[in-house]
Amino acid sequence: MVKLVIDMMGGDNGVNATVPAVKKLLNDFDDLFIVAVGEEDKLAELKDEKNVKIIPSKTIVPMECSVMQAMRMKDSSVNIAVNSVKNEQADGIVSAGSTGAFLSLTTLILKKLEGVDRPALISPFPTLIENKYVVLLDIGASNENKAHELVQFAKMGQAYCKVIYNNDNPNFYLASNGAEEGKGSPVGQEAYTLMKEMKGFKGNIEARYVLKGDADVVVFDGYSGNIFLKSSEGMAKMMSSLMKDMFKTNIFSKIGYLLAKKGVKKMRDKMDYKKVGGALLIGVNTIPVKAHGNSDAESFYYSCLIAYRLAKKNLIKELKEKLN
Amino acid sequence: MVKLVIDMMGGDNGVNATVPAVKKLLNDFDDLFIVAVGEEDKLAELKDEKNVKIIPSKTIVPMECSVMQAMRMKDSSVNIAVNSVKNEQADGIVSAGSTGAFLSLTTLILKKLEGVDRPALISPFPTLIENKYVVLLDIGASNENKAHELVQFAKMGQAYCKVIYNNDNPNFYLASNGAEEGKGSPVGQEAYTLMKEMKGFKGNIEARYVLKGDADVVVFDGYSGNIFLKSSEGMAKMMSSLMKDMFKTNIFSKIGYLLAKKGVKKMRDKMDYKKVGGALLIGVNTIPVKAHGNSDAESFYYSCLIAYRLAKKNLIKELKEKLN
Repeated sequence: MVKLVIDMMGGDNGVNATVPAVKKLLNDFDDLFIVAVGEEDKLAELKDEKNVKIIPSKTIVPMECSVMQAMRMKDSSVNIAVNSVKNEQADGIVSAGSTGAFLSLTTLILKKLEGVDRPALISPFPTLIENKYVVLLDIGASNENKAHELVQFAKMGQAYCKVIYNNDNPNFYLASNGAEEGKGSPVGQEAYTLMKEMKGFKGNIEARYVLKGDADVVVFDGYSGNIFLKSSEGMAKMMSSLMKDMFKTNIFSKIGYLLAKKGVKKMRDKMDYKKVGGALLIGVNTIPVKAHGNSDAESFYYSCLIAYRLAKKNLIKELKEKLN
Repeated sequence: MVKLVIDMMGGDNGVNATVPAVKKLLNDFDDLFIVAVGEEDKLAELKDEKNVKIIPSKTIVPMECSVMQAMRMKDSSVNIAVNSVKNEQADGIVSAGSTGAFLSLTTLILKKLEGVDRPALISPFPTLIENKYVVLLDIGASNENKAHELVQFAKMGQAYCKVIYNNDNPNFYLASNGAEEGKGSPVGQEAYTLMKEMKGFKGNIEARYVLKGDADVVVFDGYSGNIFLKSSEGMAKMMSSLMKDMFKTNIFSKIGYLLAKKGVKKMRDKMDYKKVGGALLIGVNTIPVKAHGNSDAESFYYSCLIAYRLAKKNLIKELKEKLN
C-alpha cells in the first residue's frame, strides 16, 4: 500500500482541483491510501470513499508567504499535511500551495537525507526525441549553490532516472555557458572538476542543447535552473501565441488549421506540462511533490501520480544507496 | 560619414558571407566608409569599390581561442581589425569570428568607457507585441557580475533604447527568480536596492515574462543572461521542429500547410534572428558588433547595419552622458 498525504486546500483552484483528482486516483489504484487534509465541509464528497482518512484544517497559507508565517500557521492545511506525513507514516505528500512554504516546511519538519545539504526541485522535460525525457535539477529550490551540492544533485538525478525510467546507467551533464572544460561560473568550474571522477559524466552542456535528447540528467544550480525553466516557458508561450496568429491570418490558413488539426494536437500533447506533473523536491526524507499553483484537476492528478509511482518504486531507498 | 572596420575573414563562412554583405552595404548607403581587413586575394571583388580601404591580414584566429593566443596572433584579421579602429579613427567594428577573442581584444585595445567596469553583450529580442522589442543585457560577456555592474548595465541599456528606438524614458527590470523584492541571488538583491533609486526601474521580472512586451530593458548578470538566451533558442528550435512534424503528420496536414503558408512565413519572420543582427558589446570606446559565427551574407549585413545605425545616432555620446 502506498500512503500519500494531500494538501486539499492549496493552489488557485483549491478543492475544485484536488477533490476530483483524488477521486480519480482512488478509482484508478487499489493500493493507494490517501490522507486528505482540508476543511471538512469542503471534503464531504470524499467521506464515504474507501482508503481515505480526512484530517481537518482551518486556514490556508497565502501563495506569497514567508517561512516564519507558514511555520506559525499551525492550523493551516499545508502545515498539518506536512506534520501528518510523520504522524501517519506516509510515503509522500502533494500540495499546489505556496512553493516557499511547502519547500521549507517539508525540509524543516521532515529533514534532509544523509549526504544532502540542499534538496532540489527535479522534473522531467520533453526533448526533440519522441518519448525521451531529460531530467533537470535544481530548477529553483535554491538561490545559490556550492560545488559539492551540484555533485549531490547529479547523484540524486541519476537515482531518479533509474527509478522512473529503469535506466541503470544514466549519463549526466552540467549546464554551463559553453561546452568545453573551463567554461561556467566559478562554482560550475569547481563542480566540473569534482564531477570528472563520477560515472556517467559527459561534461558541460549549453542551455540550447538541453532539450536535444542526448542527456539523461542535466544539473543546474537552483538560480540558473529557474531561469532555464522560466525562459523555456516564456518562449513556448510566445511561439504558441504566434502559432495561433498564424492560423488566424486568413481564410486559407483557417482551413489549413482544420486540415492540420491532428498534427496540432500531437504537438500540444508533447508540450503539455500538465501531463509532466509537478516538480519533486528531492533530497528530503519523503516524496514531496509541488503541483503548479494553477493546477486543475487533471494536472493535480498527474502530480499525485508522480508521488505514487516514486513511492511505489521506492525512490528513497535508491537515493540512500546512491548518496552513501 | 560613418566609418566601420570589418573583419572579413571571421566566422564559419568567411568571405562568402562578408564580401556580399559589404557590397550591399556600400550600395545601400552613400555615407558609409568601410575598412575591410582580410586576405587581399580574397577581397579582389572589393578593390574597385568606392568608399573602401583594404588592409591586408595573413592568419585567422580559430573559433575556440584563448585571449593570450588571440593577442599573440598579430597578423590575424581580428587583431589587425581591432587595431585599425584606433589607427583609422573608425566608429565601429564588426566580426563573425571567435567571440572570446573579439570581446577581449576589443576591451583591451580600445578600452572601456569611463564608468563601466564590465562591458556587456546587448541585443533586442522580439516580444508578443507586434513591432515591440525588448533590449536584454548582459547576454554573456561576463561569467559573474557584481551589483554595481548590473546598475551600469541598466544605464547602458537605457541609453541604447533611447538611441535605437527614440524612447526617451525607457523602463527597465531586473531579471530574477520571482517578482517581489527580496527575490533573486544575493548579488541581484543588492542590485535591486541600488536600482530602487533609479528612474524607470520597475522591479524584478521572472524570465517567463521577459518576452511579454512590458519591458523596454531587462538586466541580467552575464551568466544567467546567457542561460536565458540559449534556453529560449533551444525551446524555439524544439517548437519549430515539432511544427515541421505537425505539418508532416498526414496528407491533410500537408495541404493544411500549403493553405497556411502565409501565416507560417509571418511567424518565421518574427522569429528570424538573422534580421535582429549580432550582439553589440556595449561599454567600450567604440561600437563593436559580434555577428553570429554561422552568419550568412544576409545576417552579416544586418550585423553591420546595427553598427552603422548606432554609429550614425552617436551611441557613444549618449552613453557618456548617461554614465556620468
